[in-house]
Amino acid sequence: MAAMEYKQRTVTCGALRQEDEGKYVVLNGWVHRNRNHGGIHFINLRDRYGITQIVVGEHARDEVRQIAEELRLEYCIAVEGIVRKRPDSMINPNMDTGSIEVDVQSLQILSRCEPLPFMIDEESDAKEDLRLRYRYLDLRSTGMQNRIRLRHEFVKAIREHLSARDFYEIETPTLIKSTPEGARDFLVPSRLYAGKFYALPQSPQLLKQILMVGGFDKYFQIARCYRDEDARGDRQLEFTQLDLEMSFVTREDVLKTIEDLFVEVFAKVMNYSLPTSFRRLSWSDAMNTYGVDKPDVRYDLPLVDIGDIAELIQFGAFQTALAEKGSIKAICAPATDNLAYSRKYIGELEEAAKVYGAKGLAFVKVGKGGVLESGIAKFLVGHETAIIERMKASEGDMILFIAAPWKKCCNSLGAVRTKLARDLNIIDKNRFEFCWIIDFPLFEFNEEAGHWEAAHHMFSMPQAQYIPTLESDPGSVKGDLYDLVLNGYEVASGSIRIHDVELQKRIFRICNFTDEEAESRFGFLLNAFRYGPPPHGGIAPGIDRMVMIMAQQTSIKEVIAFPKNTAAVSPMDDSPSYVDDKQLDELHLLIKQPVKSE
Amino acid sequence: MAAMEYKQRTVTCGALRQEDEGKYVVLNGWVHRNRNHGGIHFINLRDRYGITQIVVGEHARDEVRQIAEELRLEYCIAVEGIVRKRPDSMINPNMDTGSIEVDVQSLQILSRCEPLPFMIDEESDAKEDLRLRYRYLDLRSTGMQNRIRLRHEFVKAIREHLSARDFYEIETPTLIKSTPEGARDFLVPSRLYAGKFYALPQSPQLLKQILMVGGFDKYFQIARCYRDEDARGDRQLEFTQLDLEMSFVTREDVLKTIEDLFVEVFAKVMNYSLPTSFRRLSWSDAMNTYGVDKPDVRYDLPLVDIGDIAELIQFGAFQTALAEKGSIKAICAPATDNLAYSRKYIGELEEAAKVYGAKGLAFVKVGKGGVLESGIAKFLVGHETAIIERMKASEGDMILFIAAPWKKCCNSLGAVRTKLARDLNIIDKNRFEFCWIIDFPLFEFNEEAGHWEAAHHMFSMPQAQYIPTLESDPGSVKGDLYDLVLNGYEVASGSIRIHDVELQKRIFRICNFTDEEAESRFGFLLNAFRYGPPPHGGIAPGIDRMVMIMAQQTSIKEVIAFPKNTAAVSPMDDSPSYVDDKQLDELHLLIKQPVKSE
Repeated sequence: MAAMEYKQRTVTCGALRQEDEGKYVVLNGWVHRNRNHGGIHFINLRDRYGITQIVVGEHARDEVRQIAEELRLEYCIAVEGIVRKRPDSMINPNMDTGSIEVDVQSLQILSRCEPLPFMIDEESDAKEDLRLRYRYLDLRSTGMQNRIRLRHEFVKAIREHLSARDFYEIETPTLIKSTPEGARDFLVPSRLYAGKFYALPQSPQLLKQILMVGGFDKYFQIARCYRDEDARGDRQLEFTQLDLEMSFVTREDVLKTIEDLFVEVFAKVMNYSLPTSFRRLSWSDAMNTYGVDKPDVRYDLPLVDIGDIAELIQFGAFQTALAEKGSIKAICAPATDNLAYSRKYIGELEEAAKVYGAKGLAFVKVGKGGVLESGIAKFLVGHETAIIERMKASEGDMILFIAAPWKKCCNSLGAVRTKLARDLNIIDKNRFEFCWIIDFPLFEFNEEAGHWEAAHHMFSMPQAQYIPTLESDPGSVKGDLYDLVLNGYEVASGSIRIHDVELQKRIFRICNFTDEEAESRFGFLLNAFRYGPPPHGGIAPGIDRMVMIMAQQTSIKEVIAFPKNTAAVSPMDDSPSYVDDKQLDELHLLIKQPVKSE
Repeated sequence: MAAMEYKQRTVTCGALRQEDEGKYVVLNGWVHRNRNHGGIHFINLRDRYGITQIVVGEHARDEVRQIAEELRLEYCIAVEGIVRKRPDSMINPNMDTGSIEVDVQSLQILSRCEPLPFMIDEESDAKEDLRLRYRYLDLRSTGMQNRIRLRHEFVKAIREHLSARDFYEIETPTLIKSTPEGARDFLVPSRLYAGKFYALPQSPQLLKQILMVGGFDKYFQIARCYRDEDARGDRQLEFTQLDLEMSFVTREDVLKTIEDLFVEVFAKVMNYSLPTSFRRLSWSDAMNTYGVDKPDVRYDLPLVDIGDIAELIQFGAFQTALAEKGSIKAICAPATDNLAYSRKYIGELEEAAKVYGAKGLAFVKVGKGGVLESGIAKFLVGHETAIIERMKASEGDMILFIAAPWKKCCNSLGAVRTKLARDLNIIDKNRFEFCWIIDFPLFEFNEEAGHWEAAHHMFSMPQAQYIPTLESDPGSVKGDLYDLVLNGYEVASGSIRIHDVELQKRIFRICNFTDEEAESRFGFLLNAFRYGPPPHGGIAPGIDRMVMIMAQQTSIKEVIAFPKNTAAVSPMDDSPSYVDDKQLDELHLLIKQPVKSE
């Protein structure tokens, strides 16, 4: 069978139409379905381009009929035959090739297929690890084929757009210096230098800034990035981002660049029309209104502050929160036939809130004639009108309250908002709603470590008015930072960068780096800033996540050809794996035996 | 200075022309040159797009003149001014902006620059490590800017061409299973699984084959690859290749795909017209005629076999070689004014030959009237005409002989050919001459290891006629392999692949893998081949090397933004470097102390 001679295709399985009738063709592909109707074999032959029905009729040569008998699903075959128009009654309008079939003259098996671990195109029933173990079969499914094509087209459209606008795509190294902050670096032991390591980049952040110092003006790269983080949620050890940086720009320039980019790319790839500029929310408005810094703005359900009204209400939770300078916020769950606001359901909402630290979820129902019923109604007597008006509530609505410290209050009620929207089924899955979140805090206090650290990373520019008071009041400093949010996912993060040695050093110090530590880790960046750096800024949209959203999936594994599973393992090749002692020897490494506890 | 307000450019430094006279403009850029002629400052302001002359005249405000005084090379500045036509005598026809200058109204320093370690655009004088240490300055040079742009345009044109021909670009993982054969893998320790490792791919070879099993039909990727090899010649730890694979193809299809690709890309990027198909040489013809499997065919200087004539010649070296079934080959060095074939020079040629194992280089000079003079002339008496005719030699030419085992003979005389061509100055640097080398041996005997191994890699298809005798006569097996050679460099290597489990296992066995070893390393590929693999093949042109040749450079470092030096170190950030004990702890690693000798 090896080094076989075989008939090479003259057309693909997606190509033939009625006007090809009578043509002699060769097809190569896979047996997708194989039905035997009264001695006639109807075989659906599949390749990347489509499916063509091939028919081994009663008049076919014995040899051909024998091979047809032998065919099993996913055998790879070569077929010679004549294109015939199907009888009218057999035309399949749902198939591009549905008006023809190929009358088989000869048939050759190119390779056989063992019994399938799962049916192609019914892969959604298979367990994830099974799909990943047999990824070569899973990749044959229509879904995976379409998503990988979408990814190809998305990235291609990005490149075309940026290349036409004077951006150069420049490759940066992936064996670099380890400069961990935030996530852990993957390390790569050096064979030539015992005890030394390269690191895989968490992003090309410093290298792209150095490219700006190098005068490249407009850079992008579809860049592989690496983070050795504990598996939580939908993360991969390696992921891909559109890394982008520009010199002599302000925030407005970066935002406009990205808006123009995605407007064109969504039109081209998805035939979807985005607005020419995206909604903007300050970080504090996003938190106050949606309870989260990556709001899904496809629906409203706003959080509403009722602190001023609550001052007058003698309800313990409200008074405690106010005494502790906390917040009291409410959300109005609209009356609907979809959802009965039962005690049980409100309990579920409360559970969602508690994940973010709320102690409880109070509620009242809006009854007839502006009466508030059940829940904490008795505490609200006399304030019904104020609350109903503030909440823009109507009869049958349910008003839900959380009283807690500001951030907990926002996040908890934000979780309630998200769950409500899903259960109310008010999210339009066919809409893509971008928004910018701007004016982020530059620093966060790390309670555990007992010091301030960068909320995003240490290279972002503080807004000018905060520069005199960086050290004295880090908590109030806003940065020239921006996140791009799509349908409730953060899909990009960026900033105008610092390009001044002294300011950069101040930031390092606030983040608890001594000058020596900063020099040893980031000295090469500080050096670069001593040689005429331009003002610059950039952003980095995540490719995996964006394609996932565009493909209406909920896991990035669905848009990556060979992902790891949630245990960071590739079931197909069983990596990571043990290696030869010789390999470890050459790398000057010993494996530490885990200390057994008892 | 931080978070500064500054005037953003309204045009770039390459944009202004005579018709812009009178316009008010803002430029941002770097001080490239700064001359003071009688109190008038002529400043060449540079950005990625060009250079514009800005002038601080005598009438300028004191403040502006003071700043102009302060400017040093590579200060980054913002300039406001009016476009003026230069006086006719000052027009510089060599500059795109040479007919105008900008009369400065205001000037702002955006960042300062310390004294330069080397002059921009004179970087060729600087030592390599100095250039790499200050790569951000080196990258500002016209040469580096042009080469990085060329690389961007080359890769862009490749993507456009292939995407338009139904290829999908698909990303494959770079944390994979270690399957070393040939070069060493870089390893990446797993934190979650003590003692286990991922490996960085030497190429996506197996993954792209699995993509074919997955039905993707036509795949490409601009892929980062990694080899932990000892620094020899012009190698980098990481490099980039155009990885390409196709299903249902023969060698002809792959060759045509690549020819079409580079014909279009060279036309687009270099304005260079390649022939629509490239010359082909079998491996043995290439060796016999050019002495090497990657011949520079921009010039002839063929090696000529004279074994049959030599049989009759009583010259010891010839007779010894013949007795040992070796070869006797000669090359005709043409008479020229450029090069006197002195004894000293022939000694240099002999040194070049000896590197490849020849014991000596014999020579004769063609004198007047078909007389052979000096060197081994006395042994050739009676055979002058035969030799001169065979060699197509003329008066004044020098004929150079090597007698040695076939491969040594070819390689040694090939080295003589290469040196001759350089010294004769007959290589046209502006020509790009591709050729294909086909019909390579599939196996090579590894004398050291004492067994056969794959000449390219173990996944290449043997040519059909050799399949019955793979085991009995591995040395004579030719593979369905092809290399693409450009100007004497191997720039791509490819093959039709095996897609049959049993044949693949035979190859593993011949290469000294037990079935168990093969299963443990390559089991996932063998498994994939059990599920209807299509016949497939591919190739992988090296991007770094191709751009290097296109840019007429001799080191790939010239076309990589941030290369390592020959000691595998990045002088800019000093990677590889030591890491925190905490990082090693988390990876379960100990560093083995080198055993001190004495």
